Amino acid sequence: MKILIVHAHPEPHSFNASMTHKAGDALRRAGHQVTVSDLYAEGFDPVEAPRHYQDRENRDVFSPLGEQRHAYKGGTLAPDVAREIDRLEQADLLILQFPLWWHGMPAILKGWMDRVFVSGGLYSSKMRYDAGYFRGKRALVSMTSGAPAQAFGPGARGGDPDTLLWPVHYSLHYMGFTVLPPFTAYGVQGHGYSYQSNDALGRHLQALLDGWVEHVTQIDNAKPLSFPGWQDWDVDGRALR
Amino acid sequence: MKILIVHAHPEPHSFNASMTHKAGDALRRAGHQVTVSDLYAEGFDPVEAPRHYQDRENRDVFSPLGEQRHAYKGGTLAPDVAREIDRLEQADLLILQFPLWWHGMPAILKGWMDRVFVSGGLYSSKMRYDAGYFRGKRALVSMTSGAPAQAFGPGARGGDPDTLLWPVHYSLHYMGFTVLPPFTAYGVQGHGYSYQSNDALGRHLQALLDGWVEHVTQIDNAKPLSFPGWQDWDVDGRALR
Repeated sequence: MKILIVHAHPEPHSFNASMTHKAGDALRRAGHQVTVSDLYAEGFDPVEAPRHYQDRENRDVFSPLGEQRHAYKGGTLAPDVAREIDRLEQADLLILQFPLWWHGMPAILKGWMDRVFVSGGLYSSKMRYDAGYFRGKRALVSMTSGAPAQAFGPGARGGDPDTLLWPVHYSLHYMGFTVLPPFTAYGVQGHGYSYQSNDALGRHLQALLDGWVEHVTQIDNAKPLSFPGWQDWDVDGRALR
Repeated sequence: MKILIVHAHPEPHSFNASMTHKAGDALRRAGHQVTVSDLYAEGFDPVEAPRHYQDRENRDVFSPLGEQRHAYKGGTLAPDVAREIDRLEQADLLILQFPLWWHGMPAILKGWMDRVFVSGGLYSSKMRYDAGYFRGKRALVSMTSGAPAQAFGPGARGGDPDTLLWPVHYSLHYMGFTVLPPFTAYGVQGHGYSYQSNDALGRHLQALLDGWVEHVTQIDNAKPLSFPGWQDWDVDGRALR
């Protein structure tokens, strides 16, 4: 299996980095091929903007979707976007690794979606959801939070993980991915702290890493999340039931 | 009343720009003071990263939250972040104006939250939610979508607006804002198209602008959205009921 980890943390010694390294090592040991898109290390620009389009369809008015379509068809996509699409094409499994910032992905990863999921190329009005471009591929979210696990759930202080991840998961579903259950490392404190320390926090972090490695190496047993598809909507997109 | 519109669209002639202009004009006519943070025009950098911190608390390991706290206390916040905080301090009402990209805010606006909602300054473990820094101020989302209104709702193709906006709304709630009902302009097609054209699309867009102006000038009649607060949680953040 070929696996792409899109990694979104600014610090190479962060716990997120440990998660990406540990997962990569375990997956390689299991015989898989692993590629990491380290968005910070690669200086990925997450801002969808005119500067990324050399050959404009319309020089007067910048329409992101129009220019995405035009650049895809003309083969003039920005090199970083073309590179990310190439990595996605090759992957059987996509992993998004990030710290939960403001109930969602860090901007650098949100903008990776904004720029890389190209309109007119990787999706169209018909090529979406269960008819999406990446159908047959799987995807999953792996995130960290400083808050403790008990603070998450319906009505709880940190919010319900299913709700807060809905926009991320549904965007992956939109692109055709089969979305696997997420993994969340809660209570990640002590930035730059070694998870190898033999104290309570060190043992907690080590257990999280072990749990993540188990999660990611056992995905064939995971039941995918369920989202509505074309058979659930009328022609205008209304829910049929 | 002082109003801050944080505007997140790359094209000055976009429908989003029309929404910001129309709201600004109407609110000024009603006697209010309006400031616009035009994130694209100002070249706002949405990527939380070491480059924004000149005086580091820890030069070896970059902890975003640790450096935010340190910079806030030491008065060394990046000038763009300090400017945005100043604008927020002055505002009675915050409006976020953006196109719905991948079921959420464009990266430039997500990163505005990542960088501007400064840990240790604008929030702490105690100063959050209904005890948040900006309590007493109001906030609302105004967004556009190319998809038609009927495609939105529970189980519908575009998703349930309450769910997809939850991370944005809850982040505003976290900061102490009273969150007002959002406004969504659905079916915004024809980028760069004049809403003054006297055809079906022009009339649709004109009606959306009129609706938005009415929404934003009538906010005193709007019933705020309801989110859980400190009285709803136990000490660990679990929901009490």
